[in-house]
Amino acid sequence: MTSEGQRGRFIVFEGGEGAGKSLLAARLARRLETAGVHTIEVREPGGTPAGEQARELLAQSLTPWGEAFAFLLARSELVARVIGPALASGATVLCDRFRASTVAYQGYGRGLDLKRLAEANATATQGLVPDLTIYLDLPPEVGLKRKQGERDGPATGREGLAFHERVREGYRQQLAQAPEGTWVEIDATQAPEAVEAEAWGAVAALLGIETGE
Amino acid sequence: MTSEGQRGRFIVFEGGEGAGKSLLAARLARRLETAGVHTIEVREPGGTPAGEQARELLAQSLTPWGEAFAFLLARSELVARVIGPALASGATVLCDRFRASTVAYQGYGRGLDLKRLAEANATATQGLVPDLTIYLDLPPEVGLKRKQGERDGPATGREGLAFHERVREGYRQQLAQAPEGTWVEIDATQAPEAVEAEAWGAVAALLGIETGE
Repeated sequence: MTSEGQRGRFIVFEGGEGAGKSLLAARLARRLETAGVHTIEVREPGGTPAGEQARELLAQSLTPWGEAFAFLLARSELVARVIGPALASGATVLCDRFRASTVAYQGYGRGLDLKRLAEANATATQGLVPDLTIYLDLPPEVGLKRKQGERDGPATGREGLAFHERVREGYRQQLAQAPEGTWVEIDATQAPEAVEAEAWGAVAALLGIETGE
Repeated sequence: MTSEGQRGRFIVFEGGEGAGKSLLAARLARRLETAGVHTIEVREPGGTPAGEQARELLAQSLTPWGEAFAFLLARSELVARVIGPALASGATVLCDRFRASTVAYQGYGRGLDLKRLAEANATATQGLVPDLTIYLDLPPEVGLKRKQGERDGPATGREGLAFHERVREGYRQQLAQAPEGTWVEIDATQAPEAVEAEAWGAVAALLGIETGE
């Protein structure tokens, strides 16, 4: 449990379409609150007035860099206005997508230069790095089937299978390069309860919460 | 005059609030068309659907980097969708503000890191550099007086005098560092006709148009 005066922990959920990130974040937030940890949930690219406008902007077809800058705009507002202050106040922040999404989607998916993206990401996040990234891995064909019929997502949600295969590869590369203990990969083809149990184990370990499991 | 099959020239208008860039661009566009030069006028951050949305976004109070990314988003869309294709088709493009505005306003004005801004600018513009930048220099107190009463501009238009002094310093630094012949400085306290005559001289020289003046 986070003691007063201490910086909170920053936990990010990553993965392709239909992996179940939002549901998982909501369930873990409930578990954390039950355990007495003050928790704030945010999602990208929303969470601020400018971020919600950026979300609308992203519903149209943008150029690859236009899309990347829209996410970076939303991210810089979210870090400066919500995530940074929340962590400073000692809250634990659960964030649905963060900088790794930009690397996976705009870098690997759209083919933008990875070095330039890394620079822009570092700028937008003021160097903020998650304490834990929970990566939900799923074959794109499974995820896209789960999302079938949804039409209100960003343009990336309307791409074909090859795009989402590249996104998955982008996540795997980041997973492989992540410092020990900062990323957890979970097989998201499992039942939501199994995914939740695995994720909770990682979160509880990070926060020093006894799980009794 | 630009012959067919040749890349067009890219001319940018820069300067502080109230310097008269928009009026000057419109007048030069008319002169160019009269001289038989196919000319396209654009303004930042508008000119594309996403750019117009970014303009609305910028009317609210953003964090300094949020603001910078909104301009970069608009710029990357404008370069990819309008300026790049127009130049490739042989048209001369007149653009009201471009990358130097971001350096002056967000760099010098807001204090953002100049190196990071330069990187992001290069990314957003795909390395596109104006053939000619016409810089209208004006003491901020004069420009702000001219703009008095206008309330629909971006947040930078609502800043105080010290901010606009830093912006002017930012322009002067860029002017001092610009390669020979790429920037022209014009005293914008002059009558619009005198400013126009000076600017036209520079544009005509760039395009090889006989002015008879």
